[in-house]
Order: sequence, then C-alpha cells, then structure tokens
Amino acid sequence: MNQSPAFQHSEPETLPTAIQHAEIICVGTELLLGDILNSNAQFLARELASLGIAHYYQTVVGDNPARIQQAVLTAAERFASPHGAVTAPTPAAGSVSQLLLFTGGLGPTPDDLTLETLADLFGAPLVEHPDLVADIEAKFTARGRVMPPSNRKQALLPEGATVLPNPQGTAPGIIWSPRPGLTLMTFPGVPREMQAMWKETAVPYLRAQGWVTTTIVSRMLRFWGISESALAEQVAAYLSQGNPTVAPYASKGEAKLRISAQADSTAAALAKIEPVEAGIRALVGDDCYGTDDDSLAAVVGRLLRLRQHTVAVAESCTGGGLGQLLTNVAGSSAYFYGGVIAYDNRVKVNLLKVDAAVLEQEGAVSAIVAEQMASGVKTLLQTDWALSITGIAGPDGGSETKPVGLVYIGLATPEGDVLTYKHEFSGYRGRDWVRQLSALSALDALRRNLL
Amino acid sequence: MNQSPAFQHSEPETLPTAIQHAEIICVGTELLLGDILNSNAQFLARELASLGIAHYYQTVVGDNPARIQQAVLTAAERFASPHGAVTAPTPAAGSVSQLLLFTGGLGPTPDDLTLETLADLFGAPLVEHPDLVADIEAKFTARGRVMPPSNRKQALLPEGATVLPNPQGTAPGIIWSPRPGLTLMTFPGVPREMQAMWKETAVPYLRAQGWVTTTIVSRMLRFWGISESALAEQVAAYLSQGNPTVAPYASKGEAKLRISAQADSTAAALAKIEPVEAGIRALVGDDCYGTDDDSLAAVVGRLLRLRQHTVAVAESCTGGGLGQLLTNVAGSSAYFYGGVIAYDNRVKVNLLKVDAAVLEQEGAVSAIVAEQMASGVKTLLQTDWALSITGIAGPDGGSETKPVGLVYIGLATPEGDVLTYKHEFSGYRGRDWVRQLSALSALDALRRNLL
Repeated sequence: MNQSPAFQHSEPETLPTAIQHAEIICVGTELLLGDILNSNAQFLARELASLGIAHYYQTVVGDNPARIQQAVLTAAERFASPHGAVTAPTPAAGSVSQLLLFTGGLGPTPDDLTLETLADLFGAPLVEHPDLVADIEAKFTARGRVMPPSNRKQALLPEGATVLPNPQGTAPGIIWSPRPGLTLMTFPGVPREMQAMWKETAVPYLRAQGWVTTTIVSRMLRFWGISESALAEQVAAYLSQGNPTVAPYASKGEAKLRISAQADSTAAALAKIEPVEAGIRALVGDDCYGTDDDSLAAVVGRLLRLRQHTVAVAESCTGGGLGQLLTNVAGSSAYFYGGVIAYDNRVKVNLLKVDAAVLEQEGAVSAIVAEQMASGVKTLLQTDWALSITGIAGPDGGSETKPVGLVYIGLATPEGDVLTYKHEFSGYRGRDWVRQLSALSALDALRRNLL
Repeated sequence: MNQSPAFQHSEPETLPTAIQHAEIICVGTELLLGDILNSNAQFLARELASLGIAHYYQTVVGDNPARIQQAVLTAAERFASPHGAVTAPTPAAGSVSQLLLFTGGLGPTPDDLTLETLADLFGAPLVEHPDLVADIEAKFTARGRVMPPSNRKQALLPEGATVLPNPQGTAPGIIWSPRPGLTLMTFPGVPREMQAMWKETAVPYLRAQGWVTTTIVSRMLRFWGISESALAEQVAAYLSQGNPTVAPYASKGEAKLRISAQADSTAAALAKIEPVEAGIRALVGDDCYGTDDDSLAAVVGRLLRLRQHTVAVAESCTGGGLGQLLTNVAGSSAYFYGGVIAYDNRVKVNLLKVDAAVLEQEGAVSAIVAEQMASGVKTLLQTDWALSITGIAGPDGGSETKPVGLVYIGLATPEGDVLTYKHEFSGYRGRDWVRQLSALSALDALRRNLL
C-alpha cells in the first residue's frame, strides 16, 4: 500500500563500510502537542530520497534543551553507542558522514532554543554576526516596523558555523561541522522559509560536498476518471518491474503512478523513464491528464491557449471554487473571462436566464438546469466555452431521489452544443469533498472536449 | 513561535520521581521516503495531550528489524542509559511507567515486521491466536473474498500480549508489558483503523490503568487584523501566567491564542478558562473574531443571519475564492445569493457597470473600481451587502506604483454607502497567499461592519 521501492531504502541489514546518512530532527513542543502536522519532515524526507541520500530515522522533540541534546546524541552516536550497533564492526573513524537536519526553534522567543542547545552540546560559544543583525533590521524596516530587541538573538550563531541564509524570514539557519564526519543544518519551522533555504543553499552545498552520488529521477503521472485499483490492473505488468520502478498512489479523487529511475545522470535516468511513461500512456489513454506539478486547471489552460479559446463559469454548489481553481494558474486571464456565482435560484433565473418554470419543475439540481446555466453564462460573457455546476454538497438538502453528492455539470461548446454530465459523489465524505470533486470533474470534462 | 505551554509539556529540567510518559514510534519506509504525511503522530500526540499523558519524543523508523529494535531500545532506556540522563538520579526501579505507541508494520506482507521485531527483542515467541484467524477469515468472507495465506501472519502475537481489536481492518494490535514498567501498544498505519482502535480500546485501558489522572481543556481564540507580535504585547500579562496558560500561535495571516486549563473536571477547567478569555477579549476588542473551529466566513454568516441580511460578491483577482469561502459554510444559502467573477475587464463593465472611462483612467486595481464593482453587484443581485475585490495577485502584472500584492476591497452597505479598503500584502509570498489574504480581509471588513 503506497509502499515505495526507492533504492536507497532497500534497508540492508548491514550498511556499507563508508556510511553516509542523514537524520531529521524536528524541534517543537507544538509537534508533541499535535497542534501541527509535521509537513517539514515529509518535505525533507522526499528531498533526501530524490537526492539518493540515505535516511533511516526521524525524531521529534520539544523545546527543551536536555531533551534536544539527548535526541542529537542519540542520532550522532548511532554507529558508536551499544544501541547503535546496527553495523558490526563499528566503521573506522572517518568513514562515517552524518548529516543532521533540524527544523524549528530558530525564532526570537525564549522558547526557541535549537542553536544555543547545539552550541552548548558541542562546546562552542555563540557569536553575534553584525551582518545578520543588519539583515534582520532591514527586513523589519521593509515591512515598516522596528526590529524588537528580542530578534537580535537570531543573529547569534555557534562559533565556526556558516550562515544558511533565509531570504524570506528573519531566522537564519546554519551549516556547521562541530566535529569530523558530522554536519548539522538548521532550518526554521515555517515550511515556506525552510523549503526555500533547502533548495537555494542546502542542496547546492550537499552536491558540492559529494553527498549526492547517484541520481534518482521520479516522474509522477496523474490520472482523472479512473480508480487507483482499475489503474493498477491496467498497468499491472509495470508494477513488478525494477529500475525504473512504478508505484501507484492515490489522493483526493485522483490516481497517480510514480516512475522512479536511478542512473549516473539525469539524462540517463530520464532515458529510462521515457519508454515506461510512453507505454503506460498508450495503455491508459486520455485518463492520464498530466505529470508532476500539473493540475487539471493548468492543463485546461494550456489547451485553451493553444486554441486561443476563452471560458466562463456558472457555479451553484461550488460557490466560486471552479473559478478559483482556474485562476490559481498565473496568466489565466488570457483565457478565463469570469462567470456568475448563482448560489441562489434568483441569480440563476435573472442573470443566467434559466427558465423559472423548468427550475420549479425539475429542481435546481438537474441536467436541464446545468445545461441552461452553461448556455446562459456563455451568452452573457461571450466566451467560446462555458462550464456550469449545480449539485447537492450537503450535509443537508439531500433526498431519496437527489442524495447529497448528486452533481450535474454542463459544458457549452464553441459549436453551440451543451453537454451535461451527472456525478454521484460519496456524500459521506463531506461537503468539501463533494465541492472539490465537482469543480475538478468540470475541468476534466472541458479537458476531454478540448483534446 | 507557536510555542505551547500545556502542563505535561512544561518541560521541566528534572522530571518528577514517579515518571509516567509515552513515546510514539511510527514504523514505515513510506514515511522515510516522504510519501505520506505522518498524520498518525499528530493524532496520537493530540490525544495524549488531551488526556494529560506526558510525551517528549516521537520517532520514525523504516521497515527494518535492526533499526526498529534500536528505536525501541532508545525509547525504553531513556531513563537508564547515559544519553537518557535527563533525570538525576535515575529513578528507582518501579517508579517509571513507559508507554510506547507503535503505528504501522502490522500488515500481511514480508515488509510488515513490527510484531516479530518486538517479540524477538523481548525474547517472546510468536503464538497463533485461532480466534484471530477466524476473525480475519470472516472479514474476507464478508467482502466476498477468500483470505490469502499471507494474512494468517496477522494472527501471530507475542506470547503474553493481549489483543487490541481492530473492528475495521484485518490487522489486530496488541497491548503488551514485556517487562515491568513498560507497556507497548501497536496500531496499524491506516489512520481510520488506528483511530478507532485508540478510542475504543486503548483509551479505556489507559483510564483503567490510572494513566489518565487529570483533565486538560483548551480553547483557541482567533484574531484578524492584528499581528502575532502586537497581540502578544497587548496580552503580555497573560502570557506569563500559570494554570490556565496562554500561548500565541500564528497561521496564514491570522493570530491565535490558546488558553489551556488543567483541573479535575471539564467544568472546573472551563471555569478557569472563562475569566481569562473575557479579560483578553476586553483588552483586544473586535480583532478577536472567534474561537476554536470558527472561521471568518462562519462568523460573518452568523452575523448576517442575526440581522436577516444577504450578501453578494464581485471578484476579480480572487476569481471565485471569496464566494468559495462563504459557501464553505453549510447553510450559507440563507444569506449568500452569489455574485460575479469579473476577471476580465469586459465583465466589470458589461455586468457590473463599472465606468469604462474610469477603468481606463484609474486601472482595474483602484479604489474607485472596487467601489463600482461592489455597487454594481449589489444592484444586480439585490442584496443588503456586497463585497468586491480587485488586486494584483502576481507573479506578473505589478508595477512600481501598483506592486504585486496591492488589493482594493469594496463594501457596499445596506445604507447605500460604499467603503473601500486598501491592502498591500507581501507579494513575495506568492499568488496563493495574496489571493487568500484578500478574500479573508474582505470577510473581515464585512464582519466589522456587521458588529
């Protein structure tokens, strides 16, 4: 189940003699309280996997110096302490390279203790960096504020540590080797800042230091309109193969396949991926809508641009969510004109010219109303295409004949036709789920008609 | 930052003599690969906090017996090993009660190793439970399938362990004390199954065993229009107090304060919270918009319902996001009529009757256009209130005088006035951020005018 095959985690019982591995240590009492999801650990884990850097443990610890120190010692001495006897014999000194990645505890408050705890543990004094003080002050000034005295603390780094710059926030990180074979990197807990620092500074540093010795390239194929199990059956022959490996994933309403190849170079890895991707696409057809960071909205946008076509929306149960998805894509003004949120039936009749008698007789959640909404907004905004959505998002408003989750989608085409689609989503999964699937299904209907 | 004060996490340097604490150990290579978010750790952490059970560490480890054993030993010997010297002196035997909660690795595949690894570590043989075999077989039969031979493995438990039943899946858990003072509980990695097992069996067990000795109740106060630091200054006197504790949190554009009280009963805890909440509300005023699961949209909805008023929206840069927020609230059809997504300027002119000359002269992102959009949609939809948003979401389209992040909000009132609000959000935080803050700020403008 979502079990992954990547290479560096084949989990051998004995590690190779030259040990090079990373651990993630997330510092923050808010994690121990369950206040936040540890998305930082997931991000770093995925990045390490993609770089081929081995990583066997993650630890979460609160904002407490003694316990932070214990977590660091446990990690740093995996290969020396009796409990660390994963390898036998203990590798020779110099053959172990450990990378400890820390998130959290870099803020200005007295509870933010990561750096002073590390400095104390490895016996280094904290040194103020005047350039960092100036940088933090400048960031406050840019926001029209004065730097509170407490933020000065963020310019104190352990002696010998290099600054890991934080372009987006006030908390810098460090890259520090307090002893041979051990490298520490610290990042703030704010995911956006941490991710930028990782990509802009940490990864280039690790490449330069020889941590990245193999290249693993993954490509995610994204599917709409096919279940994970049906997809797995169709591509069964690919799921059991080796390099590249193919593994199924599922997320909201969408099925995915990840193709991962390991090689000496990106080009060589891509050359392994390409025939597998082509083979899968040939098997599955139009249900494959894109790859990697593609979204249905972005794919639809590209297809509309190619044709120089425009689109408008008429939304009832999604209340604007379809328009929002379309406009998540930067540059969508090239093809998206706008639309009408017709949540109340009066708006359907007055603006979209839905026939009041039909609305009365068939109800707002019906194929004919979806059809008239799509036609209405296409006429009103003078676009090439128009999409409409009307449905029962719940939790109330369902009936035996029209249960929660029943949704009609209308699609008015440049040729003057109006197609309608009926969906019955699982109402028990809740209002958000029904609304999100409705908007995405509308985009998919447009996508298939644009192909 | 996001620092929390709950009692079991007051993080004393020396622990009390009678030590009773839990650790969470999540087993699964998919976590080390970053394929999934560790929502199980968050769930268990939150549950432990609400039960008042101390919890200082979480560990993630892959499906590898040696490393699982290392993680277990590290956790089990926190108070005995040299690295575990958090307490001095080492507590007397019998005074430590440790609870290790495991998730993952209970499936039928060869990679699912949690139980055999624990059995091996503590020197207990695995014993087949015929009643479990029958239960697993029955579950397959109920789904119209035959039990594969591999699932028989799930009926093997360490000798001496009690079954922790899994009503929803085939993988049972265990409750096992392999030595005095140490209790292990295992759960499958599937969140739904784990949560049901926790609530139905684990919590009652822990209560019966005296693990749950106090009640902790928390209330989150939510703020808009005030920065975390300004809020912290205003309520500084409360931040240093004891039971109840008050701690600041920040999330997207929003500041929060969590009040947590510890007492013998929920009623007694609430009685401690209430005067503190009242005191903070009196200090901060209207910037406090709600508590706990409140959203700005839900609060606005309640205020509109109270007045029996209706609202419409006219959206440019948010593209439907404001309507979507309003309709996230079930029952919003009582007050939300709908609106116009006027992404293209033609829609602003043709539907909303924005003056084309004004649009040309002032540009679409201007106070006067926001004003005319709000008036236009209020007239078109005949509502009591109308909100409009026009701005530059980026990444392109900014200029020196109108940078990315510049947003105007219009609010047409029942009295026929139109108020406008100018915001300059940080464009560097990206398109999504600008759009989300724009929609939330529009809701907040309406909220303040409804108060």
